[in-house]
Amino acid sequence: MKPTVLLDPSFRRMKEIFTKNDRERLYDIANVVWGKDRPIPAEKVAKVRKEVVAVVGSDWRYGPIERFPRLRAFLEVSGRFPDSDYFDFETCFRRGIRVLSCAPAFGPAVAEMALGLALAAARNIPAGDAAVREGRERFGLAGNIHTFHLYDQTVGFIGFGGLARALKPLLAPFRCRIQVYDPWLSEGFLRAQGVVPAGLNALLGTSKVIFVLAAPSASNQALLSRKRLERIRNESVLVLISRAHLVDFDALTQMLYAGRFRAAIDVFPKEPIPKRHPIRKAPGVVLSAHRAGGDAKGFRGIGRIVVNDLEAILAGHPPQEMQAAQPEFIRNLGPR
Amino acid sequence: MKPTVLLDPSFRRMKEIFTKNDRERLYDIANVVWGKDRPIPAEKVAKVRKEVVAVVGSDWRYGPIERFPRLRAFLEVSGRFPDSDYFDFETCFRRGIRVLSCAPAFGPAVAEMALGLALAAARNIPAGDAAVREGRERFGLAGNIHTFHLYDQTVGFIGFGGLARALKPLLAPFRCRIQVYDPWLSEGFLRAQGVVPAGLNALLGTSKVIFVLAAPSASNQALLSRKRLERIRNESVLVLISRAHLVDFDALTQMLYAGRFRAAIDVFPKEPIPKRHPIRKAPGVVLSAHRAGGDAKGFRGIGRIVVNDLEAILAGHPPQEMQAAQPEFIRNLGPR
Amino acid sequence: MKPTVLLDPSFRRMKEIFTKNDRERLYDIANVVWGKDRPIPAEKVAKVRKEVVAVVGSDWRYGPIERFPRLRAFLEVSGRFPDSDYFDFETCFRRGIRVLSCAPAFGPAVAEMALGLALAAARNIPAGDAAVREGRERFGLAGNIHTFHLYDQTVGFIGFGGLARALKPLLAPFRCRIQVYDPWLSEGFLRAQGVVPAGLNALLGTSKVIFVLAAPSASNQALLSRKRLERIRNESVLVLISRAHLVDFDALTQMLYAGRFRAAIDVFPKEPIPKRHPIRKAPGVVLSAHRAGGDAKGFRGIGRIVVNDLEAILAGHPPQEMQAAQPEFIRNLGPR
Amino acid sequence: MKPTVLLDPSFRRMKEIFTKNDRERLYDIANVVWGKDRPIPAEKVAKVRKEVVAVVGSDWRYGPIERFPRLRAFLEVSGRFPDSDYFDFETCFRRGIRVLSCAPAFGPAVAEMALGLALAAARNIPAGDAAVREGRERFGLAGNIHTFHLYDQTVGFIGFGGLARALKPLLAPFRCRIQVYDPWLSEGFLRAQGVVPAGLNALLGTSKVIFVLAAPSASNQALLSRKRLERIRNESVLVLISRAHLVDFDALTQMLYAGRFRAAIDVFPKEPIPKRHPIRKAPGVVLSAHRAGGDAKGFRGIGRIVVNDLEAILAGHPPQEMQAAQPEFIRNLGPR
Repeated sequence: MKPTVLLDPSFRRMKEIFTKNDRERLYDIANVVWGKDRPIPAEKVAKVRKEVVAVVGSDWRYGPIERFPRLRAFLEVSGRFPDSDYFDFETCFRRGIRVLSCAPAFGPAVAEMALGLALAAARNIPAGDAAVREGRERFGLAGNIHTFHLYDQTVGFIGFGGLARALKPLLAPFRCRIQVYDPWLSEGFLRAQGVVPAGLNALLGTSKVIFVLAAPSASNQALLSRKRLERIRNESVLVLISRAHLVDFDALTQMLYAGRFRAAIDVFPKEPIPKRHPIRKAPGVVLSAHRAGGDAKGFRGIGRIVVNDLEAILAGHPPQEMQAAQPEFIRNLGPR
Repeated sequence: MKPTVLLDPSFRRMKEIFTKNDRERLYDIANVVWGKDRPIPAEKVAKVRKEVVAVVGSDWRYGPIERFPRLRAFLEVSGRFPDSDYFDFETCFRRGIRVLSCAPAFGPAVAEMALGLALAAARNIPAGDAAVREGRERFGLAGNIHTFHLYDQTVGFIGFGGLARALKPLLAPFRCRIQVYDPWLSEGFLRAQGVVPAGLNALLGTSKVIFVLAAPSASNQALLSRKRLERIRNESVLVLISRAHLVDFDALTQMLYAGRFRAAIDVFPKEPIPKRHPIRKAPGVVLSAHRAGGDAKGFRGIGRIVVNDLEAILAGHPPQEMQAAQPEFIRNLGPR
Repeated sequence: MKPTVLLDPSFRRMKEIFTKNDRERLYDIANVVWGKDRPIPAEKVAKVRKEVVAVVGSDWRYGPIERFPRLRAFLEVSGRFPDSDYFDFETCFRRGIRVLSCAPAFGPAVAEMALGLALAAARNIPAGDAAVREGRERFGLAGNIHTFHLYDQTVGFIGFGGLARALKPLLAPFRCRIQVYDPWLSEGFLRAQGVVPAGLNALLGTSKVIFVLAAPSASNQALLSRKRLERIRNESVLVLISRAHLVDFDALTQMLYAGRFRAAIDVFPKEPIPKRHPIRKAPGVVLSAHRAGGDAKGFRGIGRIVVNDLEAILAGHPPQEMQAAQPEFIRNLGPR
Repeated sequence: MKPTVLLDPSFRRMKEIFTKNDRERLYDIANVVWGKDRPIPAEKVAKVRKEVVAVVGSDWRYGPIERFPRLRAFLEVSGRFPDSDYFDFETCFRRGIRVLSCAPAFGPAVAEMALGLALAAARNIPAGDAAVREGRERFGLAGNIHTFHLYDQTVGFIGFGGLARALKPLLAPFRCRIQVYDPWLSEGFLRAQGVVPAGLNALLGTSKVIFVLAAPSASNQALLSRKRLERIRNESVLVLISRAHLVDFDALTQMLYAGRFRAAIDVFPKEPIPKRHPIRKAPGVVLSAHRAGGDAKGFRGIGRIVVNDLEAILAGHPPQEMQAAQPEFIRNLGPR
């Protein structure tokens, strides 16, 4: 008999995250209990709970984990680990239940957008496009005031998790020197990755492009405070791509209006952005409506790694592609 | 006594193309005759012509080359070989006078812009920026209709000269399969470079991104005719970065209005673009005012390779960095 | 007060595995209890056991793990996880005690030797050297019978763990197509790594160079049986670098005498090799006395990653460089 | 009518250098006059000389070049340009006749052997093999005295021509810092290639592995004199792979006997090596009988690039794969 898997993608939909082929693979290896993109009725869950070996979901909404004696894995499909205020990680760690995040499915797409936004800002692509459309473009050297190349620049990464590791190879042909601030990683490890460990202030003051790549945690809210943002040099570009949580967004907005530095922003404190939020009209910034990871191909990547890792787990092997919750990491994340 | 060099950068200016350091190196190795960014007076040229071993210039405006008995090199600083209607290449070939173009100085800058424009088009960055500014952005999946990733795409290069060779490594981390159409190169050579030789029609019909990278020649005017453009698939992107000469621009403009495919365009048949040219309002296209190579850093690259190669030539070694005129290549270029 | 760490490297010696600098870093972050390269006396252990947060060792020889209430990590320095017959992994998993192996410290050194041995065999380097020394060398084409290049060859990896992942980049400039047999990894994962999943028989029958890279486990003893070895083609080379455990060594020896294929061997069923073992005189094989990982620099790598990861753990972060024991992996390894 | 090509590979043989496929391609594009691997009879040459557009050969043995009014290319298949004492380069340069060398066909094979020899020396592979065969091997650390890894080493290239450029990518995964001594190239050019220009003495005194990669010229005979060899450090390895011409071979032999440094040698002042030459018994050296380029696959590479470039030339395009004789280079080479 096939092992039982609850499939409850919550705000995502079955067709969004699984190709036909991956859906078939999933049904091949498991007895799938699915609520047809609505919550699975509690009585249906109650009936199978003793048999459930894995849950593919977004939030945990099935009561105490203890009630699932054979549970071996929770595979989340939203893109971030559940909040530890609501999810019982400690029981999972004690019982060896894997808690896995689909975040790696978005890594390459987001990294590509980070590079695209960096080039768009460095070479002034959107403003140059608007200028031609409005008949005020300038050709040649006069059209390239304030632009720069990525080649041989010193760039800074704030955070060196999965997203940073997906971005690093895209910058390799540009021979950038990569400085990294990540207080959760040792200097020795960073050096072994071919990047340069740096303090946050030094990084901000010496990087031509600064990529904000860290996941939000209890300790990094508004890490880029007004005071820290002031360290950024006039000609530099801040690429805000992981979460607005890490930045004092009001200060950032004011500094863009003041022409202090340039930026490219894909994530905002409130999404959708309030209609009259001043960021909409800010100069020297490329704006994007949280589109870095959110395309159809990226969503299908979720299904692919979920089925690959579920297959591994059911065959008695460790998962390989999703991000496994490390106890220390989860404790450091804190409630968000 | 130092060898005499005429320095006559024509429409470029000394300070644009030489850093202070390169200017000093130049004056160290040569007796430089310079017209202070104006044409060197004819009588001044006449006085030194028997001693001149090299000319750094843009057009040749000093009468028959035979009058310069010791001439060993003409180093052009405009970015393209002089037109063979006006420049006596055959005498140079017969006498072993090197004719060198500074085009390679622009390669990396233009390649970076080609990648930036491709990502801007693929990920819809300028349109997404405009949408946020005008308050009509859509978040998430809805904001990513028609976008795609470069990863693992089949792309097409039209031309495989210096520009293509500078672009190829930038695409490497995206694992693109690169198809090349270049009638001046053998299939065997192309395969040895790790690209796939392709016919032009096949390339147009199967590439997700098509980069127009060839230098203009007598034989490639409007190579991308209306009929050929019609082979491009709906969801593909044409990146026009070398010269508008290669494309039937009217047909291209009409097809963009018809939504037949998408594009990114840095070069135009007339520059500046006429005020009312319909391309300015075309949908599905990223526009840029011939800005790919034209920034200060790129211009300084001209001076650097001019001095490096002049140094080599004066020391009795072959030049290494500028593009040397090959007789067959010049004859194939034809008058343009 | 600093956390207490037992340092008991067993058959290794403090000076072998730690540079002066790493030793100082270790003593900076921990209260180190060391037996001066002899077992730590039991009474000394008993006195501190309630305070011990980490053990750096080779075997566990301190009684039940339960007696160490604050233990958070066991960092092994021998190069392989302890045998599950003797080590209580399950308690560690339940209590969240990290069991970490120093195997990654050897990866680059062993991968380099694997490439060196492959080239030595492909290009016949040791036999060519012996020929010159004995005055029977042949120059040019006649000296290159049976040699081949690595460029563009299809190669096979048996196992795709840390060692394989360190070897892969060394082969990249040779553009090899890499086939992988690893029953513990999904096809999807392997494809995402840029290698080609393959069945064992197909791999053996189609690879020009076959690298044996898997760690020994309960299920892979003599995986390369006589019958499987017979699938290897005449002109191919078997590089045996992880453990002799995976091969029917008698069959391999006989096949080398029969000239069936060629090999390079760094590991043997018994080490030292018995004086009269026939492998010593076998033709068509490059022999090496388990020297791939065992040099001074590799040993110092152990100390470096032990201190780096200990530092991370004591600071409340997940370890990054050592190999963490995964429950499924340990269970699959089985007693060896 | 097809253009006439003399095919006179001299000491090489048709079947050695052309695959069946390349031979067919050759006969497809040209009217081939071949002497069946013997010199083409003079009267046969005389009959066609006015029609000959290209000669594929080794030495020029057909009288004054002026007698061949339509000659456009001489493609040499021996691996080095003809000696300027015997070959009339100046007429070729004046008339625009291409003189092309097949040396690039050997680049990858020789580079692979250079890496193989460097690893063999660094990791002591041939001596380790001999030790096991003679029953005097030592396992583990004791077997690795004097070995070292290539990772992160500083290496030196003497010469930065085609061979060096084929070796550089093979070293890339080892992250070596590459110092280059090449008096024919500017510092600016070398830096742009990602290597570090260095004086010869500094290079010898600071490189862990020194690769001799330069082609022999009038000015580099015994460039590595006894005095210069003395600068090499005790633990370093000299890899002699291009020509023995560049080294004081007697001094080198004596220094190996004295244990001053280690070496790997593929080329010798006299080949075959005299029976009693002391190098045969020298310690600390890996010996190879000029086998780096001389295998069947390398020889077939000659035919491939000859046909590719002949095809290009006959179609009116510049050759791409063979090395074109540059006037300055030929003059610097001098008589050898």
